[in-house]
Amino acid sequence: MSISEKVRQAMAEGSWIRRMFDEGAILKERYGAENVFDLSLGNPVMEPPSRFHQELKKLVKRPLPGMHRYMSNAGYPETRAAVAEFLEQETQLKFTADNIVMTCGAAGALNVVLKTILNSEDEVIIFAPYFVEYLNYIDNHGGRSRVLPTDELFLPRLDILEDSITDKTKAVIINSPNNPTGVVYNETLLNQIGKLLDQKETQYGIQIFLISDEPYRRIIYDGLKYPSPLYHHLRTIIITSHSKDLALAGERIGYIAIHPRCKQQDELVDGFIFCNRTLGYVNAPALMQHIVKYLQNVTVSITDYQKKRDFLYNNLVKMGYSLIKPQGAFYMFPRTPIEDDVAFVSELQKFKVLVVPGCGFGAPGHIRISYCVDDRTLEGSLHGFYNVAQKFGLS
Amino acid sequence: MSISEKVRQAMAEGSWIRRMFDEGAILKERYGAENVFDLSLGNPVMEPPSRFHQELKKLVKRPLPGMHRYMSNAGYPETRAAVAEFLEQETQLKFTADNIVMTCGAAGALNVVLKTILNSEDEVIIFAPYFVEYLNYIDNHGGRSRVLPTDELFLPRLDILEDSITDKTKAVIINSPNNPTGVVYNETLLNQIGKLLDQKETQYGIQIFLISDEPYRRIIYDGLKYPSPLYHHLRTIIITSHSKDLALAGERIGYIAIHPRCKQQDELVDGFIFCNRTLGYVNAPALMQHIVKYLQNVTVSITDYQKKRDFLYNNLVKMGYSLIKPQGAFYMFPRTPIEDDVAFVSELQKFKVLVVPGCGFGAPGHIRISYCVDDRTLEGSLHGFYNVAQKFGLS
Repeated sequence: MSISEKVRQAMAEGSWIRRMFDEGAILKERYGAENVFDLSLGNPVMEPPSRFHQELKKLVKRPLPGMHRYMSNAGYPETRAAVAEFLEQETQLKFTADNIVMTCGAAGALNVVLKTILNSEDEVIIFAPYFVEYLNYIDNHGGRSRVLPTDELFLPRLDILEDSITDKTKAVIINSPNNPTGVVYNETLLNQIGKLLDQKETQYGIQIFLISDEPYRRIIYDGLKYPSPLYHHLRTIIITSHSKDLALAGERIGYIAIHPRCKQQDELVDGFIFCNRTLGYVNAPALMQHIVKYLQNVTVSITDYQKKRDFLYNNLVKMGYSLIKPQGAFYMFPRTPIEDDVAFVSELQKFKVLVVPGCGFGAPGHIRISYCVDDRTLEGSLHGFYNVAQKFGLS
Repeated sequence: MSISEKVRQAMAEGSWIRRMFDEGAILKERYGAENVFDLSLGNPVMEPPSRFHQELKKLVKRPLPGMHRYMSNAGYPETRAAVAEFLEQETQLKFTADNIVMTCGAAGALNVVLKTILNSEDEVIIFAPYFVEYLNYIDNHGGRSRVLPTDELFLPRLDILEDSITDKTKAVIINSPNNPTGVVYNETLLNQIGKLLDQKETQYGIQIFLISDEPYRRIIYDGLKYPSPLYHHLRTIIITSHSKDLALAGERIGYIAIHPRCKQQDELVDGFIFCNRTLGYVNAPALMQHIVKYLQNVTVSITDYQKKRDFLYNNLVKMGYSLIKPQGAFYMFPRTPIEDDVAFVSELQKFKVLVVPGCGFGAPGHIRISYCVDDRTLEGSLHGFYNVAQKFGLS
């Protein structure tokens, strides 16, 4: 056996998202990319905002001495300070550079946080449908995933959450705006979750971290203000990246922010820095750190995404699909008219439309549509959605 | 307890290198950076070669569409192909893009490889003095480090290696040119190691990977040709980065290359790609991948490093220090004239010279000097080295 049994097994189970990516590649090869409507990946087609290009040009024109060298494992003090300033502006909480650790994207940040806090067999609660990598990340560091169902609006059910927290619970991961549903958790719900965690911490004499995975925080529609979990639980850890808001997914730039009033912050941040180093990330890529410090108030055009959402949502509803209208991110998660979501995905593939079956997110009977694609792809996909809807008797 | 017990303990034991970094920061604050001679970190003071800046400028002037998006977790096909072409040129072995996975530096690469191959409790052999992070990386993925001593030239002892390989041995990590000693493993030794591994594989019916960690491969002196382990064991995995050869340490760009005649290569590469994703690296930073594909034949000035080596080596020898002349990398590892290397390091600190005690590399009774610094720092350190040599009776 050349590779580890665990990795072999995990690979065999595979990721539906990547499987779709590979099948898509075959279809594109066969029919030409322009004839395949790939709505399977969260890989924004948008380019970074023009401010990004301006700052990059400026820096490249006048390089700073030593700007590609190692820096502190936590990141550049100026970048951390810029992130803290933005967070303070947004939340009115007194963030400082010491609350921030720059990371290789949100995926790097999540691994760093989980490695830092988890003892072997500690439990981490996640909600289905979930971003499938959570299972891998939790397992990487010896934790156990506890997957809880959500209600018909894809929101956590407090009664089930209450029953599921034990003295082994170390963290609850929430993801709002949500991948794959596009749902945004409201203030009331966050408040209830926070209160419940406080109460359970007292009951069991433990600390429970609320890990808020927020890569889509700034992609939010209809003028909604982002409801932050920071107001509802002191042991909140924010995880985010600039993959989506600045369309820099391939550059691996993100950060961890710890609640400035979390009592354990010094020890935690020391742990994050240590794990950022020892997990082999070492530091967030230097060049991107130099750039994003100027871009904390910049995002890609949210209006464009909202238009795409409206276009696709309205069309799918007209065709008879049943789905929750997304309030953020760039995904929607319709019910499939037949139980077997994998079969449904295969039907769509016949029309060269690629989406991911809900079972890949722990929620069979749905499909995830990623609409961070160009309008031509969205428009082109309608024919397939319509025909399959007809076939399965929607109207 | 907010952080994991294991992380807390590892942090308490700490890294000597980082401890020196922190003490150095305090000294620099107190006396001014120009009065402190910091030889403690492998953070090259050199800037990337001019070709790097040219390519970066070109790319930024004419950005490629989608050049900051996700790509395949293995990296861009063109970048992988460019690396393969370089390796084929260098080794005459038929590398292709399929043998290469681009990673977030060599540290990322090592973690990806270890995660891919290690079952719980598998043993990984390393040689002291060693790069201290090996212990963390092996532990991250449930492996056990087996640390073996080296001979008076810092080369592995074959008799001890032979006795130490068991049916639980999954890999041997070698690091040539070596951090912290600067030693380069010769062809004969590599051949003997390769033969021994082949023989032990047959004896136990197992596969043993030779992981060659080569970030300093191209920093090699006196016209020496790099002796590659690739000729001596089919299950060789090359790990490297452009941190040192292109002075891009902060950018986190490196790769894994599997021996093109390794029979398990397909399964292994699939495993590497999977673990690159699931460990949260996702992919090597996109922008750097676009650049380094043009720079496979470029390095920083080796002549400059060789001059620094000669200057420091000759002066230390004159002062009576006992040390092996480094053939590569930018470290030297003299014996301390007193047994207690930590006390010796403190003596040097009184003269504002910062180095790392050998105990941080599993080899007490030595110090590691990193000479990838500017000449002023090297020159300034001589006063301290001289005075401490005198104090301890060297001549």
